[in-house]
Amino acid sequence: LQELNQAEEMHGLMKRLFPLCRSITGKGLRDSFFILKEIIPSLTLTEVKTGTKCFDWTIPREWNIRSARLTAPDESVVADYSANNLSIVNYSVPVDKYLTLAELQSHLYSSPSVPEAIPYVTSYYKEHWGFCLPHEKRVSLEEGLYHAKIDSSLTEGSLTYASMLIPGETEKEVLLSSYLCHPSMANNELSGPCVLIYLVRWLLSSKRRFSYRVVIAPETIGTIAYLSRHYEDMRKNTVAGFVLTCIGDDGAWSYIPSRLGNTYADLVCKNLLRTSHSGYKCYTFLDRGSDERQYCSPGIDLPVCSVTRSKYGTYREYHTSLDNLDFVSPAALGESFDFYKELIENIENNDIYERKILCEPQMSSRGLRSSLGFYEGGLPSKNIMNTLAYTDGHADCLKVSESTGLKMKEVCDIYKLLEHHELVKKSR
Amino acid sequence: LQELNQAEEMHGLMKRLFPLCRSITGKGLRDSFFILKEIIPSLTLTEVKTGTKCFDWTIPREWNIRSARLTAPDESVVADYSANNLSIVNYSVPVDKYLTLAELQSHLYSSPSVPEAIPYVTSYYKEHWGFCLPHEKRVSLEEGLYHAKIDSSLTEGSLTYASMLIPGETEKEVLLSSYLCHPSMANNELSGPCVLIYLVRWLLSSKRRFSYRVVIAPETIGTIAYLSRHYEDMRKNTVAGFVLTCIGDDGAWSYIPSRLGNTYADLVCKNLLRTSHSGYKCYTFLDRGSDERQYCSPGIDLPVCSVTRSKYGTYREYHTSLDNLDFVSPAALGESFDFYKELIENIENNDIYERKILCEPQMSSRGLRSSLGFYEGGLPSKNIMNTLAYTDGHADCLKVSESTGLKMKEVCDIYKLLEHHELVKKSR
Amino acid sequence: LQELNQAEEMHGLMKRLFPLCRSITGKGLRDSFFILKEIIPSLTLTEVKTGTKCFDWTIPREWNIRSARLTAPDESVVADYSANNLSIVNYSVPVDKYLTLAELQSHLYSSPSVPEAIPYVTSYYKEHWGFCLPHEKRVSLEEGLYHAKIDSSLTEGSLTYASMLIPGETEKEVLLSSYLCHPSMANNELSGPCVLIYLVRWLLSSKRRFSYRVVIAPETIGTIAYLSRHYEDMRKNTVAGFVLTCIGDDGAWSYIPSRLGNTYADLVCKNLLRTSHSGYKCYTFLDRGSDERQYCSPGIDLPVCSVTRSKYGTYREYHTSLDNLDFVSPAALGESFDFYKELIENIENNDIYERKILCEPQMSSRGLRSSLGFYEGGLPSKNIMNTLAYTDGHADCLKVSESTGLKMKEVCDIYKLLEHHELVKKSR
Repeated sequence: LQELNQAEEMHGLMKRLFPLCRSITGKGLRDSFFILKEIIPSLTLTEVKTGTKCFDWTIPREWNIRSARLTAPDESVVADYSANNLSIVNYSVPVDKYLTLAELQSHLYSSPSVPEAIPYVTSYYKEHWGFCLPHEKRVSLEEGLYHAKIDSSLTEGSLTYASMLIPGETEKEVLLSSYLCHPSMANNELSGPCVLIYLVRWLLSSKRRFSYRVVIAPETIGTIAYLSRHYEDMRKNTVAGFVLTCIGDDGAWSYIPSRLGNTYADLVCKNLLRTSHSGYKCYTFLDRGSDERQYCSPGIDLPVCSVTRSKYGTYREYHTSLDNLDFVSPAALGESFDFYKELIENIENNDIYERKILCEPQMSSRGLRSSLGFYEGGLPSKNIMNTLAYTDGHADCLKVSESTGLKMKEVCDIYKLLEHHELVKKSR
Repeated sequence: LQELNQAEEMHGLMKRLFPLCRSITGKGLRDSFFILKEIIPSLTLTEVKTGTKCFDWTIPREWNIRSARLTAPDESVVADYSANNLSIVNYSVPVDKYLTLAELQSHLYSSPSVPEAIPYVTSYYKEHWGFCLPHEKRVSLEEGLYHAKIDSSLTEGSLTYASMLIPGETEKEVLLSSYLCHPSMANNELSGPCVLIYLVRWLLSSKRRFSYRVVIAPETIGTIAYLSRHYEDMRKNTVAGFVLTCIGDDGAWSYIPSRLGNTYADLVCKNLLRTSHSGYKCYTFLDRGSDERQYCSPGIDLPVCSVTRSKYGTYREYHTSLDNLDFVSPAALGESFDFYKELIENIENNDIYERKILCEPQMSSRGLRSSLGFYEGGLPSKNIMNTLAYTDGHADCLKVSESTGLKMKEVCDIYKLLEHHELVKKSR
Repeated sequence: LQELNQAEEMHGLMKRLFPLCRSITGKGLRDSFFILKEIIPSLTLTEVKTGTKCFDWTIPREWNIRSARLTAPDESVVADYSANNLSIVNYSVPVDKYLTLAELQSHLYSSPSVPEAIPYVTSYYKEHWGFCLPHEKRVSLEEGLYHAKIDSSLTEGSLTYASMLIPGETEKEVLLSSYLCHPSMANNELSGPCVLIYLVRWLLSSKRRFSYRVVIAPETIGTIAYLSRHYEDMRKNTVAGFVLTCIGDDGAWSYIPSRLGNTYADLVCKNLLRTSHSGYKCYTFLDRGSDERQYCSPGIDLPVCSVTRSKYGTYREYHTSLDNLDFVSPAALGESFDFYKELIENIENNDIYERKILCEPQMSSRGLRSSLGFYEGGLPSKNIMNTLAYTDGHADCLKVSESTGLKMKEVCDIYKLLEHHELVKKSR
């Protein structure tokens, strides 16, 4: 029940965040972070001033928008920011102008392949304005004089990101990263920060072995800004990291590896997917698209991969107004929460055990095996024996899971049982 | 002819051993070893006293049985030890009691999936008694008072195992292991010790490079008892070891790897199977079931794997009265003997050769190739050239076999020929 | 156009060479080399005297032939050297003799599987004479007295090979090897030296990083003679080598690996085949047949592999009179030239680059990416981003090609662009 409630809560949070017009800077973004802070007050917001150099990038002016509307010659509304904030090219400069349809065309954006949807378009780094609309609407526009009016501003200001470091028993840390900069779209991107913020709440609920670094920043530039200030510490301490995105729909589980492909982050991800969602889709790093691009960058070299449901760029609704609250569900958010929670527990519990006795122990005397040797009776203790067989004082739970085909959780549970019977002891 | 005779001899030995009621201790087991000693008098029997600690295990009391019978209310015999020693739960305590059918049920064992057969059931480590019978017979039992009478004893005594060490030119040794503890069943288990004892006779027939350690013990506890006294020497000297079991039927050749999967024992086994029985079945260590469980145990870590015909647990007759003398054949025993003999010869002959000249030798001047260059004429010397091509002073015959696809036996024969022509010399 | 001309030139060269009766020694061989020297005057001819020891081999007497004819009892001509020089067993000793058909049979060679063709037969190392003829003709021969007349000579003389070393910026060298010893056959073998000599002309046209060693020798004994004098230098300097043969027909691209299978030569070959001819046939070293037998010989150990079209021994026309000028084409010769040229360029340009900035660069500000973020717009800059993603200061262009799936040529072009934008610099 508690889990059902939490899935609904995550979905409720997404509903609150959905209408805000986010961008890589500005009030919509800042207000979104304030909502997240209501759940996790210790989340820290950082402002990076316009003009600040971050590696190869410069923080742009802050963009804010109040209203925008494109009106047809017959006074009907073609596109209206207040109806859907995707209607405006994100970062549009102000305009108030009458144009012929021909003149207007280079300021209109639509998607012939998803003709009923408004596409998502941005122009962060070049001054431009434009309206986005369904392609089927665009092709029906008639000749005449259109009125384009955008009330926006580009001013000295700052880019905002949220982050926190949850200290654990060790300085070694796990990175959990998501991004916030898209306007009204649900799976990509609100599913990521919404699940992440609830994972943080769970992480804070008890003491952990590892420290946890949480980053929620505008994609690309925000993450680059964050990395430019923290990458040396992160490179020293990060044992594994994950980019959380596109985890709100019910598509197939999908894995995007790190650049090196075989980091500890990859190994625990692939292990959990193999033992829990064996039909998962396996992409390559060439299919990457989110902030693993920065985290895995040569010289940064963090062990970061990503597990999504329907991967960005692979589903029809992606980057359009169809990626809305109907496309995601509380159930799917709950499953994604559970996946990352189990992943983190696996990392927390990935101990190495050693055996206290040579050869097989006498299991039946400890009640761990039937005293009756009867083949027909099956071998319910096979999992225990397999775990013991691979307990060599070097293999961690991950490796034992790989060798036995058991889930890491099952391996850990078996070790607790065997520890209780004094058959194994933790060696790390 | 001699080989045919030997196959018949092995089958004859199995016939003599079949009726005896073996267990992990007792007279039936001891008498079985006495029969093996008739063929190999130098086989040493060792008695391990009741109560002796062997790693985690304690040698149990010795079990002996004289008679056992379950009589129906109408005086008909339901199960009789003298008709088939599988009729009794092995290690049954004595009983002489009248029970209703309902009371009797918890002492009856039958197999619904093989309803016409008596299943094999044991209760070594918990005091219990019971009768085993065909399921089709069990379901036809009528209400009334049954008479269960078992004349058995559990007394201070000892567990018996047989072993020997055949010294070779080097202390490095090959382990050949089988087990003896099952009552009247042929493929699992008599095929193993019967083929093994004839391999020992062949091994003794001439001087060998390696020493050979032969162990025939009651499965699990007998092997653990043996290992607890010898594992340090074995760990120091063993180059490869094999568990011989289920090698009397004509099922597909089957390979059960060692725990590590890539030991020298595995490599020579897989090589011989690949080059001689290419359709062989490949199991994993998770499918193990016999004494490789102990030999491959962490801390023991011997390079031991197993090649069987129909693997234990995979055939319908397994652990029932159907695994009888009809299920095995002299021909299959002969084939298994030949397999392990060739395996041992491959280990004995796995030398490294080096070439005495650079580039290809002039083969036609030595009669090793046709002097006529004629493509139509084929290349009967291709095998020789391939062997030479991989003779780099580092590759042993096993590696050359893997590179060329030739059997190790063929590689060795080619090296003898090339040595005769002074084109190669042994470098190890 | 220039390339078309060159393809025709190569084919023209092959036409001139085709009629000459080559062998492993003699005038036909020497005259063939003189024709090659017309194109590359700096090609050096070396004569190795009869009786010279070369590793295990001794240079045989020089063979020359003036005429040979087999006449039927009815005076009709059965086989005539002047009509086709395959009609004579290569290295036939002189004879002038009348024989019955029965006596003649052991001197006749024909191929039942290619009955319309004259097969190619040699007897270099054992004195013998014989005639080769279509099998369908042989079976129609009638009884009677045949006249065999061969006017040939075996005299003290020498074996000829051609070679040169084109110095580059470094002493490290690439080996390009082909062979010359077959009489009138086109794909195997004239395609090899004809393409090779034009590659040499192209290599000489500008300064190269690597030195190039060119060897054209009679197959087997000529290459062994060459190696016996040069293998120590070659072993020290060779980074990659290739045997050029069977590259004149339009069969599938085929790859024969080196003995070790994973040398630098193999890696660049497989890379180019994978990215340009993805359906190529992959053979093993067991399928070898040409001078890679010597180059890859243990103790010689050069990194040499081979890319052919229809591999020797796999096509019906092989080693018969059907492997004639109709079997090859200018177009196929041109494609083979282009393949080896690109292979060499890949080796020449296989640099390592490093990035000058951390994280992704701002591409749109440099015009390397659209300033518009619009998914529908595609990602024409994906190849650039992928190349950058794998630029870690350690990966050479070959490795980046393997990681990105781009051709090496494409990777190199992208690096030139990125170097221009000061985003990367060459680190080796």
